Amino acid sequence: MPDIRIILVRPQHPGNIGACARAMKNMGLKNLVLVAPQRFPAEEAVARAAGADDVLAAAAVVADVSAAVADCVFVAATSARARTIALPPLDAREAAATLCGHARSGPVGLLFGAERTGLTNEEVDYAHALVQIPVDPGFASLNLAAAVQILCYEIRCSVQGAVPIPQPDHRPAPQEAFNRFLGHLEQVITDIGFLNERHPRKLMRRLTRLFRRAHPDDNELQILRGILNAVQHPYPPRKGASGPDNT
Amino acid sequence: MPDIRIILVRPQHPGNIGACARAMKNMGLKNLVLVAPQRFPAEEAVARAAGADDVLAAAAVVADVSAAVADCVFVAATSARARTIALPPLDAREAAATLCGHARSGPVGLLFGAERTGLTNEEVDYAHALVQIPVDPGFASLNLAAAVQILCYEIRCSVQGAVPIPQPDHRPAPQEAFNRFLGHLEQVITDIGFLNERHPRKLMRRLTRLFRRAHPDDNELQILRGILNAVQHPYPPRKGASGPDNT
Repeated sequence: MPDIRIILVRPQHPGNIGACARAMKNMGLKNLVLVAPQRFPAEEAVARAAGADDVLAAAAVVADVSAAVADCVFVAATSARARTIALPPLDAREAAATLCGHARSGPVGLLFGAERTGLTNEEVDYAHALVQIPVDPGFASLNLAAAVQILCYEIRCSVQGAVPIPQPDHRPAPQEAFNRFLGHLEQVITDIGFLNERHPRKLMRRLTRLFRRAHPDDNELQILRGILNAVQHPYPPRKGASGPDNT
Repeated sequence: MPDIRIILVRPQHPGNIGACARAMKNMGLKNLVLVAPQRFPAEEAVARAAGADDVLAAAAVVADVSAAVADCVFVAATSARARTIALPPLDAREAAATLCGHARSGPVGLLFGAERTGLTNEEVDYAHALVQIPVDPGFASLNLAAAVQILCYEIRCSVQGAVPIPQPDHRPAPQEAFNRFLGHLEQVITDIGFLNERHPRKLMRRLTRLFRRAHPDDNELQILRGILNAVQHPYPPRKGASGPDNT
């Protein structure tokens, strides 16, 4: 993971600091900097970190934003409100990609303001880009840890970008086996008088599409064909028509 | 915003319920369902909702997952661990696009398990797809509200995205109709002696998953049930055992 610094500026609630540490560690980030936290260290922080104590323990505590970003080659600032300043606004996804890109050159930082007040204009002035997380304009105030979670998640997605999506853990059966099942199905529904003479091809096409969507594997085809065999040769003496349909 | 139902299954901490309500409302979602919450309503829930009280007040409380998804045309289940079952795993972004697509046809649900234990296999069986949020494998346990936040964020991105949402080319039948088909199938394969006494539940679970993957629409369920009826009451005089299996 790129070494992206998560910088919380004057966080008010220690619980949020802990939740941020957890959110970071979940996504593989570990570099936390606290600018003038109201209360830290604190028990609530450890409780909400839920195992990310190492991130809290390694957190740097500094006096102001200037100290937090002194060695950074790139800084982005999260902001709920539109600012009048001429910074390129990035959404969370663009910001993640941009941060990961710059992280190849040196330390990069991502600023989050205090819960109630956000970042001051002077603090935003340290940033090269503004980050706006898409929210409902009618209820725009994200919890601090939630904002950190979304950005750290996007950073992880950005890093994994090229990684192929995990394959489902089942292997659809080869077409030949699937087609043998279809042939068997057609025979059975003909035997029981379901496949009438009017639109047999159309009905079989519908059934083909339905079962193809299910993408059965070999084992599942075996089960289905077992059912078809049992229709053809019921195991126990057939009791005649079964009970009422359980519609 | 599409009407996507966020379903918390047996949530343990009321604070998390409140945080989830806030996360939802931030992203423009409002439909919260609680399955057997340990403690609700609760003051901590309102406190952490931080203004999303309306989402809490409108939350439906139901007894089990079955009731929560009864009318859903599509259900996705979040899961931290890999499951051995053959459901297509989606990452959070794919899941959001898929949910938004199906939401055009009817109610869709997104299941989140209890904080400590997650969803049971039986609960996951209600889902058409598994959602896995990318996390660091060494610290994979996301806070419940954090998981809800990420998915709701991706749903908002999906809605706002320029990328066209894939339109499912058919409308899956509601769960209730699907479950009636399963009941009918179970009766028929019992009648013909296929569902033996040894592992009947396991076999039915496999068949459930197989047919759920196929996502049948109303018309297809009618065809399948027509076949089951024909097995129970063959139309022409049954000719006895049909020819050899066309293996």
